Amino acid sequence: MVNVAVLGATGYGGVELVRLLAAHPQARPAYLSSETYAGQAVRAVYPHLAGVEAVLRPLDAPQVAAECEYALVALPAGRSLEAVPKLLEAGVRVVDVSPDFRLRDPALYLEWYRAPHTRPDLLPTAVPGLPEWHREQIAGAQLVAAPGCYTTAALLALAPLLAEELIEPADIVVDAKTGISGAGRTSLELPYHFPEADEDVSPYAVGGHRHLPEIVQGLTPLARGPVGVAFVPHLAPMVRGILMTIYARRAAGVDERALRGRLERRYEGEPFVVVLPEGVWPHTKWAAGTNLCFLSVGVDRATGRAVIAAALDNLVKGMSGQMVQCLNIMLGVDETTGLPVRGAYP
Amino acid sequence: MVNVAVLGATGYGGVELVRLLAAHPQARPAYLSSETYAGQAVRAVYPHLAGVEAVLRPLDAPQVAAECEYALVALPAGRSLEAVPKLLEAGVRVVDVSPDFRLRDPALYLEWYRAPHTRPDLLPTAVPGLPEWHREQIAGAQLVAAPGCYTTAALLALAPLLAEELIEPADIVVDAKTGISGAGRTSLELPYHFPEADEDVSPYAVGGHRHLPEIVQGLTPLARGPVGVAFVPHLAPMVRGILMTIYARRAAGVDERALRGRLERRYEGEPFVVVLPEGVWPHTKWAAGTNLCFLSVGVDRATGRAVIAAALDNLVKGMSGQMVQCLNIMLGVDETTGLPVRGAYP
Amino acid sequence: MVNVAVLGATGYGGVELVRLLAAHPQARPAYLSSETYAGQAVRAVYPHLAGVEAVLRPLDAPQVAAECEYALVALPAGRSLEAVPKLLEAGVRVVDVSPDFRLRDPALYLEWYRAPHTRPDLLPTAVPGLPEWHREQIAGAQLVAAPGCYTTAALLALAPLLAEELIEPADIVVDAKTGISGAGRTSLELPYHFPEADEDVSPYAVGGHRHLPEIVQGLTPLARGPVGVAFVPHLAPMVRGILMTIYARRAAGVDERALRGRLERRYEGEPFVVVLPEGVWPHTKWAAGTNLCFLSVGVDRATGRAVIAAALDNLVKGMSGQMVQCLNIMLGVDETTGLPVRGAYP
Amino acid sequence: MVNVAVLGATGYGGVELVRLLAAHPQARPAYLSSETYAGQAVRAVYPHLAGVEAVLRPLDAPQVAAECEYALVALPAGRSLEAVPKLLEAGVRVVDVSPDFRLRDPALYLEWYRAPHTRPDLLPTAVPGLPEWHREQIAGAQLVAAPGCYTTAALLALAPLLAEELIEPADIVVDAKTGISGAGRTSLELPYHFPEADEDVSPYAVGGHRHLPEIVQGLTPLARGPVGVAFVPHLAPMVRGILMTIYARRAAGVDERALRGRLERRYEGEPFVVVLPEGVWPHTKWAAGTNLCFLSVGVDRATGRAVIAAALDNLVKGMSGQMVQCLNIMLGVDETTGLPVRGAYP
Repeated sequence: MVNVAVLGATGYGGVELVRLLAAHPQARPAYLSSETYAGQAVRAVYPHLAGVEAVLRPLDAPQVAAECEYALVALPAGRSLEAVPKLLEAGVRVVDVSPDFRLRDPALYLEWYRAPHTRPDLLPTAVPGLPEWHREQIAGAQLVAAPGCYTTAALLALAPLLAEELIEPADIVVDAKTGISGAGRTSLELPYHFPEADEDVSPYAVGGHRHLPEIVQGLTPLARGPVGVAFVPHLAPMVRGILMTIYARRAAGVDERALRGRLERRYEGEPFVVVLPEGVWPHTKWAAGTNLCFLSVGVDRATGRAVIAAALDNLVKGMSGQMVQCLNIMLGVDETTGLPVRGAYP
Repeated sequence: MVNVAVLGATGYGGVELVRLLAAHPQARPAYLSSETYAGQAVRAVYPHLAGVEAVLRPLDAPQVAAECEYALVALPAGRSLEAVPKLLEAGVRVVDVSPDFRLRDPALYLEWYRAPHTRPDLLPTAVPGLPEWHREQIAGAQLVAAPGCYTTAALLALAPLLAEELIEPADIVVDAKTGISGAGRTSLELPYHFPEADEDVSPYAVGGHRHLPEIVQGLTPLARGPVGVAFVPHLAPMVRGILMTIYARRAAGVDERALRGRLERRYEGEPFVVVLPEGVWPHTKWAAGTNLCFLSVGVDRATGRAVIAAALDNLVKGMSGQMVQCLNIMLGVDETTGLPVRGAYP
Repeated sequence: MVNVAVLGATGYGGVELVRLLAAHPQARPAYLSSETYAGQAVRAVYPHLAGVEAVLRPLDAPQVAAECEYALVALPAGRSLEAVPKLLEAGVRVVDVSPDFRLRDPALYLEWYRAPHTRPDLLPTAVPGLPEWHREQIAGAQLVAAPGCYTTAALLALAPLLAEELIEPADIVVDAKTGISGAGRTSLELPYHFPEADEDVSPYAVGGHRHLPEIVQGLTPLARGPVGVAFVPHLAPMVRGILMTIYARRAAGVDERALRGRLERRYEGEPFVVVLPEGVWPHTKWAAGTNLCFLSVGVDRATGRAVIAAALDNLVKGMSGQMVQCLNIMLGVDETTGLPVRGAYP
Repeated sequence: MVNVAVLGATGYGGVELVRLLAAHPQARPAYLSSETYAGQAVRAVYPHLAGVEAVLRPLDAPQVAAECEYALVALPAGRSLEAVPKLLEAGVRVVDVSPDFRLRDPALYLEWYRAPHTRPDLLPTAVPGLPEWHREQIAGAQLVAAPGCYTTAALLALAPLLAEELIEPADIVVDAKTGISGAGRTSLELPYHFPEADEDVSPYAVGGHRHLPEIVQGLTPLARGPVGVAFVPHLAPMVRGILMTIYARRAAGVDERALRGRLERRYEGEPFVVVLPEGVWPHTKWAAGTNLCFLSVGVDRATGRAVIAAALDNLVKGMSGQMVQCLNIMLGVDETTGLPVRGAYP
C-alpha cells in the first residue's frame, strides 16, 4: 500500500481520482489538496463519496512529499508548473494531467498558453502518459505527463494506422463531440449553464483548440511526412463522453479489413481498448464511468476516406483513469487494478 | 383563405404543419389525415394543440381534392408515391416532403429505397422545394418535392460556395449531429428509447445515409467537376436541431473573408437565412421552433480547409416550415406569412 | 401601436418579452434596458433574435418615460423598487414581475427579502397581475405586480376550488418540479452548471421558498379559514416548465367530477387555461414556449385527497407571457394578441 | 465461488446484475437467460460489457439448477411465477425482483396484476428482500422477494419513523420522481420515446400505481393504525434515479432533531444508507450507479409536516444491487462484496 496525493482534488478529474483510489487495493488517497475548500471534509463538497473521511488541505509540497511517494496532479495549467518541480525535487513520483509538461517545445507552450514555460529543463524528462503506447517508459518515470481527453482519443485511433502508413498524415479531419464535464467544475461560464447547454450542439474553438498541437506532436514521430489535422470540437448536451469522428485518406490499396485488422492486432490484449466488429460504431454511453476506449473503422463509399470513430469517458480514460493506469504501471501492479472496465448501462 | 390538407398529420412533421397552419392568416388546415388515429380529434393525440378542433380522417384522395386546393404531404417513403399522383390528377397542388419525388433518377430510388419507382413520369415535373434556390419554379409548380433536413442544411451551406468555385467539389466532409425527433414518432426503436439515447452520442449510417444522393444531386449542377461527399450523421441527445459541420478544400486564393462575403451576398434579404459574423458559430438552440438556418464559416489554420457550419430545426426549416414557405410562394403571399422567425430561448 | 419599454431585457424573462413584443401587432419594444450589455445590439447577446435591430441602453427612467407609455419590468428584486416609482411618477404604466410590489405587507418583504420596503405607500396601488382573476383591475391599473411562476401555477389550480370550498385550506401539500431556466441567466451557480444539474432531481428551499408567502397571500382571501401550504420545489433536468402536484383534502361530499366540473366552469372561455379531461394529466412539454396552463384533477383512492396538477412554462405563462397578457388588457386589445397559444411539439 | 444464474439477463436490471456479478469475487454469472437473444453473446447485445464472454441461453429451469446454486430472477410479472417454483423445487436459492412473490395476499395480486396467483402456497415462504430490515430472515431464506424501487425508497424513509411513532400512519403523501430507465428496455412505448420524454415532467398512474399496495404492506406491521398513502409517481427526464419526497404528519412533540436522530440511529453502520446532515437534501445523481440510498428530513414551517426525502438508483439499490446485497447475505459474505458504494460524479 502506497500513499498517493491527489492535488486539485475537488475538480471533476480530482474527485474521480479520489473515487478510484478509495477503492484501490494498493494505493491510499493520503493527501487531498484543495485551496478553495481547505479545511473541509471532502464529503462536505461531494456527499456522494460515501465512506471517504479525508479532509482537504492546501497544497504544501514538502508536506505532500513527507507523506506520499506518488502524486496525481489535476491542477489547472500554470499551477502544475509551480507545484510539480517541488514534488520532483523531494523525490515524489508524479503523474500530471495539466498541459504544463506535455508540449516538448516551450515555444508552443508560450503560443497556446500565453505564458512562458519556466522549467523547460524538465520537459525532456516528462514521459507521455498514454499507457498503450508508452508503458515501458512510464514504468520507470519520475514525471508522467498524461495526455488530455481529446489527445487520448485521437492518438488511440490514429497512431496504429499512421505508424503502418495505412492512412496519409496530411489533411486529416477530426470532428469531436464532448460532454460538458470537460469544461470542469470551477468554470461556471454561460456556455455551460444548464439552460444554455441543454438541447444544444455547437462548435467551439474552431481550428484553434489547445489540444491540437499535442495531437500533432503525438502523431508526428509515427508519420512519414507532415501531420495536418483540422480539429473542430463541439459541445454536446451530455455530462460525460467524447465521440471523435475522424476522416483520413487511405493509402493506396488499403481497405476496411486492413484498417480494422491493424487496430485489432495493435490493441489485442489491451484491457482498456475495445475494437468493435464491422458495422458496429461506438457510443459514448458504453464508456461512461469506465477506463475504456471503443474504436471502430469503416470506409466512406463516396470519397473513399477512412472513417474512424473513438469513444471514451473524458473524465476517466481521458483523465483520472488514465492517471491511475499510469500509477499502476509505476507501481508494477496489474494495469487494471482499481479501474472500472464495465460501466453502469444505461 | 385557401383550404390546405395535411396528409400524415400525426407524425412530428405533420403536427408541426398543423401548428403552423392553425396560425396562418391565409391558409386553413382543412383536412388532416391519419390512418392510425382516424376518427379521433387531433387534440386527443396532441393535447398541446389548444384551440384546434379538427378530427383526423383516413386519407381519401378524392375527398381531399374536393375540399382542398393544396396538400402538404408528410407521409413516409412509398406512401407518397401512391397518394400524390391521385392528388395531382385531381388538380391539387402538392408540397411533398417524402423522398418519393426528390431523386431525379429512378435507379437511385430503387438503390436507396429498395422499391421500384412506379411513377417516373412525374419526376421531371417535381420542383425542388428549397425556396432560397428555387422560388421562381416553386411559384408555378404543381408538385414541389421539399428536401429533407440534412439536404437543406448541406445545400444552404455549400451551394453558394460551389456555385462560385470558392471550394472544391471533391473530398467534402460533412459531419452532422441531429436531434432524435428526426427519427419520427412512429419509429419506437431502441436507439430512440430515452434510456439509450440520453447522455449518448454515436454515429449511424456511416457513409450510407439515404440523404447522401440527394445532397450530391443538389450540388452537382452547381459544381465544376464531380461532387464527392463523405457524410456521417450522428445522434445527439436533444429533441430538435441539426448542426452540420462541413470541411471543404478552398480554391486557390480564397480566404475566410471571401467565403463569408459570398454567403452574406447570396443570402442578403433572405428572411430565413442568417449568416453570422466572424468568429460566431451557430447553435442549434437558436433555431429551435423556427424556420431559420444559421450559417458561419472559417478557415482551419492547420489544414487550410474551409470549415462551414449550419444549424436549423429539422422539424421546421428542415420539414414543416420549409413546406409552408413553399406554400406561401405558391399562394403568392409574403414568404414569412405564418412562419416563426424567432424562437423561444433558452 | 404603443411604445413599450422592456427593463432587464437580457435576462431570460426579458429576452422572452423582446421576442413576444417583436411579433406584437400593437406594441413596439422601444426601449430595451441592460446595464451589463448597454451599448450592444441585443442580437450580439442573443443571436437567435433574427430581425431585431435594437440596441441595449442603460436604464434611464426619464428617458424611458419620454419614449414609452408602458414598461414591462423584469428587474431583480430590489432593483424594481428603485426604478418603478420613477416610472410611475412620470406617468408610465408598469407591469412589474419582480417581488417588489407583490407582497401587500412590507413586514413580509423584510422577512423574505431581507431589505426594508422603501415604498410601502405604493403597495396598495399595485394590482395583482393574474389575468384570469384580476382582469378588471388590471385594465385600469397603473402598476401591475405580476405573480411569479410558482404562484401562477398554484393560484390557477387552487383558487377555484378554495373559492367554492371544495377543498380545505389547511394542510395543502404543493410539490413543484421546475426547469432550470427558473434560476435565470445571470446566476451562474454550481447547481445550474450543466454537469451538476443534468441527470439529477433534488429538492431545494424546503419549506422556505420565497414564493410561499405570495401563494398564501393569494389564496387567503378566497378561503374560509387559514391557508396552510407545505411547498417544496425541486429542480428537474429540463430548461423550461413547472409541473406542480398538489394534494389537498376534499370537503365532505366532493368527488372528482365536482372538482373537474368546477375547474371547467371557472376557466371556460379562458384562452390560456386548458382543463384536461378525466385521466389525462399535464405534461410540461405541452406548455413549452406558450402562454398556456394545463390543469387536471383526480382523487387519490387510498387517502381520498384531491390531486391537482398544473403545468406551465415558467418563462412565458409564469413570466413574460403573463406580462404581455396584462399589457393587452391595459391596452384594451384581445388578450391573446401576440401571444403563442400553441407550442412546437415535441 | 458459487455459480449464479441471472434470469432475464438482457433487461436493464438483468444487465446490471451481469455487471455486478462479473466483478464479484465470490459469485460467477454462470447462466444468463434471455428468450429474445438466446444464442447470442451477451456482448452482442450490450457491447459495453468488456471482458464478459457469456452466451445467452433460453430459460431451462432444470439446466439452471444443474449448474447454479443461486438464481437472481429479473423476469417480468407472471414469468417469475412460472419459473421460480421450478427452481425452488430443484433446490436453487432464489432472489426474485418481480412482484410475483411480494404481495402476501393473493387477492391483491389478482387486483393489481389482473391474473390469479397460481402458487399462493409459496407466498408465506417468501422473505422480503430489504436487507436493512430483514437480513436475518434473508440469511436463511430459500426465496427472497426483493422489493421494487419505489417500495425500497419508501420503506427506508418511513419505516424507522413509523416504527417509533414519530409520524402518523394516516394521510402520508408520497411524491416520487423517477428516471425513465424504470420503464425497462423492452417497453418501447411512446412516453419513453426520447422526443416525448426529454424536457418533460408529468405524473402517471395517479393514485393507482402497482407499488402502492406493497408500500402499504411493508409499513402496516410497523404502524399503530391504518396506513394511508397518497402515492403519485412522475417521469423526470433522466435515465436513472428516484427522488421521493414524503410529507407526513408528525406525532406530538416530535421535532426535526428527533426525526433525523431516529434515522441516524436506525441506519448507523449500514453501508448503503446515508443520512444527510441538517439542511442537506439528496440528489439522485449522488446515488447513480451505486447501491446507496440518501435520506434527509426536515419540518415544513407552514404546516408542520415532516418532509422526508430519499434518493436512490432505481436499477441498483432499487433492483440489481439490492439483489446482490441479498445474495451476499445468503452467502454469508460481507454485504458490500462486489457492490459499488461510490459512483462516478458528475
